[in-house]
Amino acid sequence: MIPIPSSDFPRVIIVGGGFAGVKLVKKLKNLPVQIVLFDRNNYHTFQPLLYQVATAGLEPDSIADPLRKQLEPVKNFFFRMAEVHTIDSENNKIFTEIGELDYDYLVIATGSRTNFFGNVSIMQHAFPLKQIPQALDLRSHILQNFEAATITEDLMEKKSRMNIVIVGGGPTGVEVAGALGELKKTILPKDYPELDFEKMSIILLEGSPRLLGGMSEVSSERAMKYLEKFHVQVYLNTLVEDYDGHGAKLSNGEEINTHTLIWAAGVKGNYPEGLSPSSLERDRILVDECNRVKGYDNIFAAGDIASMKSEEYQRGHPMLAPVAIQQGNHLAKNFKRLLKGEELKPFTYLDKGSMATVGRNKAVVDLPGNARLGGFMAWGIWMFVHLISIIGFRNKLVVFLNWVWNYFTYDKGTRLIIRKFVPKRLRMQQKELEVTK
Amino acid sequence: MIPIPSSDFPRVIIVGGGFAGVKLVKKLKNLPVQIVLFDRNNYHTFQPLLYQVATAGLEPDSIADPLRKQLEPVKNFFFRMAEVHTIDSENNKIFTEIGELDYDYLVIATGSRTNFFGNVSIMQHAFPLKQIPQALDLRSHILQNFEAATITEDLMEKKSRMNIVIVGGGPTGVEVAGALGELKKTILPKDYPELDFEKMSIILLEGSPRLLGGMSEVSSERAMKYLEKFHVQVYLNTLVEDYDGHGAKLSNGEEINTHTLIWAAGVKGNYPEGLSPSSLERDRILVDECNRVKGYDNIFAAGDIASMKSEEYQRGHPMLAPVAIQQGNHLAKNFKRLLKGEELKPFTYLDKGSMATVGRNKAVVDLPGNARLGGFMAWGIWMFVHLISIIGFRNKLVVFLNWVWNYFTYDKGTRLIIRKFVPKRLRMQQKELEVTK
Repeated sequence: MIPIPSSDFPRVIIVGGGFAGVKLVKKLKNLPVQIVLFDRNNYHTFQPLLYQVATAGLEPDSIADPLRKQLEPVKNFFFRMAEVHTIDSENNKIFTEIGELDYDYLVIATGSRTNFFGNVSIMQHAFPLKQIPQALDLRSHILQNFEAATITEDLMEKKSRMNIVIVGGGPTGVEVAGALGELKKTILPKDYPELDFEKMSIILLEGSPRLLGGMSEVSSERAMKYLEKFHVQVYLNTLVEDYDGHGAKLSNGEEINTHTLIWAAGVKGNYPEGLSPSSLERDRILVDECNRVKGYDNIFAAGDIASMKSEEYQRGHPMLAPVAIQQGNHLAKNFKRLLKGEELKPFTYLDKGSMATVGRNKAVVDLPGNARLGGFMAWGIWMFVHLISIIGFRNKLVVFLNWVWNYFTYDKGTRLIIRKFVPKRLRMQQKELEVTK
Repeated sequence: MIPIPSSDFPRVIIVGGGFAGVKLVKKLKNLPVQIVLFDRNNYHTFQPLLYQVATAGLEPDSIADPLRKQLEPVKNFFFRMAEVHTIDSENNKIFTEIGELDYDYLVIATGSRTNFFGNVSIMQHAFPLKQIPQALDLRSHILQNFEAATITEDLMEKKSRMNIVIVGGGPTGVEVAGALGELKKTILPKDYPELDFEKMSIILLEGSPRLLGGMSEVSSERAMKYLEKFHVQVYLNTLVEDYDGHGAKLSNGEEINTHTLIWAAGVKGNYPEGLSPSSLERDRILVDECNRVKGYDNIFAAGDIASMKSEEYQRGHPMLAPVAIQQGNHLAKNFKRLLKGEELKPFTYLDKGSMATVGRNKAVVDLPGNARLGGFMAWGIWMFVHLISIIGFRNKLVVFLNWVWNYFTYDKGTRLIIRKFVPKRLRMQQKELEVTK
């Protein structure tokens, strides 16, 4: 049994310190409950900016916030750094890597993880972008390849080390491709004057006929145009069929030599074992309109992991931060009602629009009501919305100052290879963990 | 052969991008030479602030600066990220992990590395503090131990996970002990309200009768007093005899349970193979007063690695950043003379004083001419001198802003465990590398 002081209040266990989990803990602050939060990291990750860590624009401290610090004001709160393996719903108990613990209420907010759709070879060689260590790994990998490119006289290898393929034309794929295009245009040629950057290709692959499938067609086309300005080649209707760490085989028959393939093509839910199969669907947990897991009274799910079907969202809400934040918020209110014996109220998602940035002065924004913005104005909105969404005032400030610096100096400060001692073997293990889980 | 474009100018190979190497490259900027710099990292490390990375005060980007970016303005300059293994002085050639390369002049500026004085058990379990990955490892290790302390009910283990022993009362030992004392006093109790910090001991061991042996006795006593204010226990005349990862055996017979032993007790020179044994002494390279390696015409050494004996410095200069910077500077001037066929001029070290900080508002400074400062004023001087010494304007700014933030908020932003996937095994390997080298 994990040591947690006993309490007269009911115990709410929350699994996952992402957007939904953190919001929920904060809003439960003054309720008569004991809160225990589990996360495998001791920090919350602001995932929308992970790609900037990967592309040498930010250090991890800008987008990660220690959970204990963030949640200090919450009374009756306990944090445990551990992965939750199994739920024993009959006995109201969870099993974790550090022991077991009873709950009165359980909230699953474990988010999503990279989906390789079963392609083992891609999984072993591609770089996912869902966690901070992955972003740091990618950053070092790209820089190490440029160092290696300077010392090879094999022109094919040189090109392969400089080339980068990004799979998946959603927001992450578009944003990382744009950031790499900016690096290629403004920073790398100064760092590596010996290399011919005409020979470097940045290729973004998208399986469907357009980028940013969740956004308007106007925005898709704008994003495409902006990416071209940053010398990113976009292949639509194209999938990657295989990748061995050096060459990517595409569905159009083409082969691209590249040492770096970034996988942003899909995510799937990431939940502990033990729930009834009837409460699961397509790697997500089915919840009713009050975030209650189908078939359970005292288990809830929120955020990416929760599939709440409705007239409007027949396959559940999109797996986005705003949904998670709003559900965390709403669930806290429902807990208040629950504790008072009142009826729970259904969740409705307020869609405030969606956006993606491509690079300096270039972004696309879809607002509700068919307003579609592009260019500098969209870029300003994108920055503003991201800044206010980052948890923690220090992080907001650090990110803001980094952006100002990068904008005026055309420089990015964190071109450091500091994971040199983490060999490929280890990355493989990390991925094995993801597979076997 | 490492591909470097041929040049009409003589080639100067510099091994090591520390204080001496970087200063030398910058000052060789306009001379008719081709410069090739080797370093195993792609960045320069500002070692005096490594301890702040280890104690969650700064992120690596604040104290590391990419060498390529820093040295962009230098013409005829090539950087190669590689370790240099051997010098073949007969054929004017070096052998590195990425191939061999000819030189006309060679400068060895490889600095120093941790000296465990042959104690294998300590080497395997203690944390050195000379490189950025080591500092990040230590930070994560300390935080992971606090997480572990919250879930153990074994009181002995709980204490052992909280305790920290620092070996070596030089500037690094004093500064890291002070920073840990500050963490214990202001930050950790807020993060871990469940733990009793009365039970946590921070112990600084020094083998000689006083701290900061290189400084005045007044400063030694002041440092001692300041450390006590931060609840650091100082044991003088005490050595650690053995450490197995859980318990440290001291020379006074005492045993201390601790999961964290920081080794700041000594450094030694770190040079490539191949020099004649007669040019080596006590792990340093003997140089004449013009930094020329004893017995060689076209090989120089500067910084920590160089032992330049004189009336005043009978065992060579202290292994300090100011010596390295001044030697790099001076050596560049001598290169200018050399290329013009003029006589080289001898180096003289201008000792501007020495200093160490203990924590908030507390530092000691010895100025030339017997001025000994303490307290807030010394602390201000310490900060000012460190800020102006950090290479790169962005880094100065980032460090400054972090310090302002930490000072006013009593907070440190980077309490992140992000090396969770680096297992002990890997740290061991890293150390094996250090041993076998």
